[in-house]
Amino acid sequence: MSRTIGIIGGLGPAATADFFKKLIAATPAKGDSDHLRVLIDSNPRIPDRNDAIAGRGESPAPHLVAAALGLERAGADLLVMACNTAHHWQDVIAAAITIPFLSMIDETADAAMRSGAATIGLLAADGARSAALYERALDARGRAWLRLDDAAQRDFMAAIYTIKAGDAGDGVRAGIRAHALSLIDRGAAALIAGCTEIPLVLDANDVPVPLIESTDVLVRRAIAVARQSQRRRSCEAA
Amino acid sequence: MSRTIGIIGGLGPAATADFFKKLIAATPAKGDSDHLRVLIDSNPRIPDRNDAIAGRGESPAPHLVAAALGLERAGADLLVMACNTAHHWQDVIAAAITIPFLSMIDETADAAMRSGAATIGLLAADGARSAALYERALDARGRAWLRLDDAAQRDFMAAIYTIKAGDAGDGVRAGIRAHALSLIDRGAAALIAGCTEIPLVLDANDVPVPLIESTDVLVRRAIAVARQSQRRRSCEAA
Repeated sequence: MSRTIGIIGGLGPAATADFFKKLIAATPAKGDSDHLRVLIDSNPRIPDRNDAIAGRGESPAPHLVAAALGLERAGADLLVMACNTAHHWQDVIAAAITIPFLSMIDETADAAMRSGAATIGLLAADGARSAALYERALDARGRAWLRLDDAAQRDFMAAIYTIKAGDAGDGVRAGIRAHALSLIDRGAAALIAGCTEIPLVLDANDVPVPLIESTDVLVRRAIAVARQSQRRRSCEAA
Repeated sequence: MSRTIGIIGGLGPAATADFFKKLIAATPAKGDSDHLRVLIDSNPRIPDRNDAIAGRGESPAPHLVAAALGLERAGADLLVMACNTAHHWQDVIAAAITIPFLSMIDETADAAMRSGAATIGLLAADGARSAALYERALDARGRAWLRLDDAAQRDFMAAIYTIKAGDAGDGVRAGIRAHALSLIDRGAAALIAGCTEIPLVLDANDVPVPLIESTDVLVRRAIAVARQSQRRRSCEAA
């Protein structure tokens, strides 16, 4: 039997739905019963992560831990969180539970390493940038990175909040793409889409270098881990 | 504070993701925090509903009840189920929990009544058809209905399983649309899309009569009920 995946979601809700949809689409299945069991707590009442990191608001940490514990109690065998920025609190979450937590940041940084690019361009929300989540993950792996300057970041962040408000139209698409291309102009040989709202408006065909999408990376990894125990048990039974 | 919606899902998973996505899209929201909290148990291991109704397989009832109880325990204030056919067991589920269960069948039948159509065409999976879920709901409301004959139903059902296997391409779209049009030719003045896979391949623009989609109807109703308590409490506070 495969393992049950728990998703800490609602950060935001549309990104959670996107993650869930991609998880289903990427699962090899001939019918319903081949799919993985997934438990989702989509809780948009969790305080804003970017505001908290900027010191402007309540910490989401107790809410994230509560969601993680609730999902474990409900039967999840492993946890993921469909939000890069919230990984600022990943150690607190992982310490609170007894099941594995798959880190979107670590998995995505590992995938960026495998791209072989000498310099990785980073697109991330304010909170993830302020907390230097990807910067530190790539530093730890000895890989160069570059990111948007402060003015460009403000414009990028406005686009992210526009997407969160439900607008994923041409204007916001063009804006996000322009920021992606600016990083490539400055020398990035691969890009990390380190915010779950990005794939709602940008895909691999929009840029001429590898686009490492944190959502896709974590989806693939979660499926592999959830099915691993299945394969292992099948081998043991054989 | 709005109420938390629990979704019994995985029946199938893609239909659950579609329901979740539509719930988010239909929620009036300027940002993450305006959205509703949603708990999902997407459990594709629940035995096939159509097989069970046909007497060919294990009953999903204990699994559906377990999912309902788990969602209530996890904090859901009201429950919905993103699968028409599974509503064959709606009374068992509703009896097991202390929170309200919003029936997709009853809400959709009520919406069909509001269309004013004298005769309602029914598109539903084998199990829902064998159990006469919509037929009985419309009989109880004194409204005429018609449905596919046995041969057409077999072809329709093959298309549904194709969608469940991940293929929502042009072939399956054309097939489902042809069956919808055949009901209109026979006199249906409105159609109930009484299977959550249908809106994955057919929308209102594809047919010349009102298309009452069970997914959309339940999404709108769940949002209204979840937000009702919020408005009521705001009024009390005012």
